Amino acid sequence: MQHPSTTKKYEVFEITMTGKTTGNPFTDYTIEGVFKGKNETIKTDGFYNGGGEYKVRFMPSFTGAYSFEITGNFSDESFSGSFDVTENDKGNHGIVRTQGFHFVHDDGTPYYPVGTTAYVWNLQSEEMQQKTLDTLAKGYFNKIRFCVFPKHYLYNLHEPISYPYEGTPCTFSGDITGNFYQLMGVQPGNNWDFTRFNPAHFEGIEKNIERLATLGIEADIIVMHPYDRWGFSEMSPEQDDLYWKYVISRFAAYRNVWWSLANEYDLLRKKTTEDWERYAAIIVEKDPYNHLRSIHNCGPMYDHTHPWITHCSIQRTDIYKCAELVDEYRIRYQKPVILDEIAYEGDIDQGWGNISGQELVRRYWESAVRGGYATHGETFDRGDDILWWSHGGELHGESPERIQFLLKILSETPGPGLTRKPAMWDEVCATADVMGDSGYYLYYYGFFRPCRRLFMLDQNTKYRVEVIDTWDMTITDAGIHSGTFRIEMPRKEYMAVRVRKI
Amino acid sequence: MQHPSTTKKYEVFEITMTGKTTGNPFTDYTIEGVFKGKNETIKTDGFYNGGGEYKVRFMPSFTGAYSFEITGNFSDESFSGSFDVTENDKGNHGIVRTQGFHFVHDDGTPYYPVGTTAYVWNLQSEEMQQKTLDTLAKGYFNKIRFCVFPKHYLYNLHEPISYPYEGTPCTFSGDITGNFYQLMGVQPGNNWDFTRFNPAHFEGIEKNIERLATLGIEADIIVMHPYDRWGFSEMSPEQDDLYWKYVISRFAAYRNVWWSLANEYDLLRKKTTEDWERYAAIIVEKDPYNHLRSIHNCGPMYDHTHPWITHCSIQRTDIYKCAELVDEYRIRYQKPVILDEIAYEGDIDQGWGNISGQELVRRYWESAVRGGYATHGETFDRGDDILWWSHGGELHGESPERIQFLLKILSETPGPGLTRKPAMWDEVCATADVMGDSGYYLYYYGFFRPCRRLFMLDQNTKYRVEVIDTWDMTITDAGIHSGTFRIEMPRKEYMAVRVRKI
Repeated sequence: MQHPSTTKKYEVFEITMTGKTTGNPFTDYTIEGVFKGKNETIKTDGFYNGGGEYKVRFMPSFTGAYSFEITGNFSDESFSGSFDVTENDKGNHGIVRTQGFHFVHDDGTPYYPVGTTAYVWNLQSEEMQQKTLDTLAKGYFNKIRFCVFPKHYLYNLHEPISYPYEGTPCTFSGDITGNFYQLMGVQPGNNWDFTRFNPAHFEGIEKNIERLATLGIEADIIVMHPYDRWGFSEMSPEQDDLYWKYVISRFAAYRNVWWSLANEYDLLRKKTTEDWERYAAIIVEKDPYNHLRSIHNCGPMYDHTHPWITHCSIQRTDIYKCAELVDEYRIRYQKPVILDEIAYEGDIDQGWGNISGQELVRRYWESAVRGGYATHGETFDRGDDILWWSHGGELHGESPERIQFLLKILSETPGPGLTRKPAMWDEVCATADVMGDSGYYLYYYGFFRPCRRLFMLDQNTKYRVEVIDTWDMTITDAGIHSGTFRIEMPRKEYMAVRVRKI
Repeated sequence: MQHPSTTKKYEVFEITMTGKTTGNPFTDYTIEGVFKGKNETIKTDGFYNGGGEYKVRFMPSFTGAYSFEITGNFSDESFSGSFDVTENDKGNHGIVRTQGFHFVHDDGTPYYPVGTTAYVWNLQSEEMQQKTLDTLAKGYFNKIRFCVFPKHYLYNLHEPISYPYEGTPCTFSGDITGNFYQLMGVQPGNNWDFTRFNPAHFEGIEKNIERLATLGIEADIIVMHPYDRWGFSEMSPEQDDLYWKYVISRFAAYRNVWWSLANEYDLLRKKTTEDWERYAAIIVEKDPYNHLRSIHNCGPMYDHTHPWITHCSIQRTDIYKCAELVDEYRIRYQKPVILDEIAYEGDIDQGWGNISGQELVRRYWESAVRGGYATHGETFDRGDDILWWSHGGELHGESPERIQFLLKILSETPGPGLTRKPAMWDEVCATADVMGDSGYYLYYYGFFRPCRRLFMLDQNTKYRVEVIDTWDMTITDAGIHSGTFRIEMPRKEYMAVRVRKI
């Protein structure tokens, strides 16, 4: 048995043991850990990591002395021990939880999600992964959506660096001169053992989860998806359940993990609502930390009122109006709303991937002022088949720094987030989502270009007024005002006004 | 009695007589004309024009010999006579009628409405009216919406050049330092005789209807509206009916007249559906030419299925999605759809008047490819209180020449207009609204920016393909193609592709 004698709060504490190798260690043996501190007792499954090695991972949420005991038939030995948990750095705030329509970390720090999407950046070459991390280090985003399984799709025809199972993939010509969608689906020639995982595949993902944690970025992990030629989307219920338990036992102790049950769940034609609910039950049972859980649609939305769903992960269902529907989603689902796909900045031959940076940023703001959140993606066809949306790498668009600017604005909200306040019909006004009068108002005008604006606020309060150019990323002081007053505006699109009582 | 001995088809033939002046000639006497030619017999009311002068107007729809007889108690004399009608110039196509979801002139020439709005350009100084006509002469638009009554509204506080009735207006300070909407509504101090018209007011409008006809522009006359401080929007039913009959007797013989019962009918708080239906019945009874009839909303739409309504004159009811709803309106109302207000190009402090030229032109195209039509307006606050949307004058925006470019494209449609054809979900494809395969397809991509596009058309037909930049107004030949082919696109917003069989 190997383990460190101390760890820090919200970090992974890992115990490595050797155990039985006869038969199929992935299916034939059990391993479970129980971790006890003064303030918590956590039960969690361990997993087989290949080569006779078994592991149990744990994430402490408190400081102080902990003890543990490992049980299961993976070994005839018994394992137990103790360790100390010390305070972490200030930058580690713990797991993200929901709070009303918003998010906060375990330590109470508000978290305002501004995510991006790079579905299989983690399955590209190490060099490309490093490029992605270098880009992410610029701080544009604090969440990234990516997959466990490899991806077969437009611009995604090459093999991944690893596969999740022992076996060999089908061969694929890559010839898509016709209509690509005819080539979707599992191809002949695959040879996988769906009861034997490839631990290296998962270790690669874990390394990236850790790297993201270091950058302060949440890992919104898409556990299932339909873009498949290998058969991973068409396994049996038993194989699916085995996969889910293995994923959870490996990843759950990482504080920045979010569970996205699927991307475009409704395109997984062979899965039923009963399947999704069964996977959900497995997560609820097996994840002792209660990481965030969501399920993302292509067409019809999953019923986000289901109690296991912590927040709505929504793909827009109308090509003209999407962020504007956040109000309705909030009312309908009574949960935080993240618009995880609202079309990507780019120029590919697909309507979901060729809007301008201006339009994407507008959608971010329209979401934000309604108390929702949006997610970025980038799809430029530059002739090299490397698109951020799937492969990561470098960004070429105009939206990322504007999204970072929005994050700065959101971070200055007094409270966990925004909520809509009645306003003129041609503007959206947000206020801080706190009890009582926050004295905070954020007006957004979208594609409207008012030359000036009338405000009617409290006569007895002094407000600092700022004109915000959400595209040029400027904040211009417009003075201190009370009661009814007019503010001159620059007659441009994408302007906002922030009003804060002083 | 005075009248010319000949006239031309689709022109106004006017007979002037003297008659009784005792009492109130506007209400106390009747005058009616019957005009007979080989192919038509038209009965129409005449009207009192002040100074003892009575007039009857008639528009012949055929050439050849006509006779007429004037009756009524306006005179103890009897009047009759004859005249000849000759062919008109090629540029005069007669009244505009509906045909399915589209419009054609009496002589069968398609009419593709691309209108503008200048509510009271006709009630500005003669110098300003001439400026408006000079602007209209540039050919950007073929329809203009304007009012009979003067307008009291933001930027519209000065007195008109004339009033429709004998009497004197209230005085109005013009001080709107507070919220203007509080100053909407009839003010004290008006002194009007609603039974005595001011013929000069109507002659001024007629002069402009004629000037518009000369420019090939339809006069979409807004007979009632709510922007009123004088009381014209709150007359009694008897006064309203007298007004309607007077307007019809004066204007109906002008071929380019359309009847818009009201702008924002739902803001005329004292009028009921029964009132609107009564006005409609008066038009249907009194207008022997069956000019187009519509009624325009602010909020809730009038039920455009009513049989007297010839086409939908719609104000958008959603600030994000408007032109995109043309499909639904066509299905719901089964009539031509004109989006007569979809926000104006400009920068005023009102969401209905500060969108960009690009957004307005996008809305025009989104309407067009769905087989609908849109209407322009311009509201720049330039400090001089002259806004095209109300006063006419000069245009300062970027949309007019692009609208003219769209009109050119529409004019090259094989048939009376466009209708939507199933296409990819991120594009709108129109085809010509004719029986059978027109071999005509117009694809529009709006804010999408595809780098290239796949087409799957008939293998045995040769198509001429053109890439249209709807903003830069270029048409680029992309060659002749058949079957399945790809077209390279310039990765810009607001592109279209036109495909026509050769």
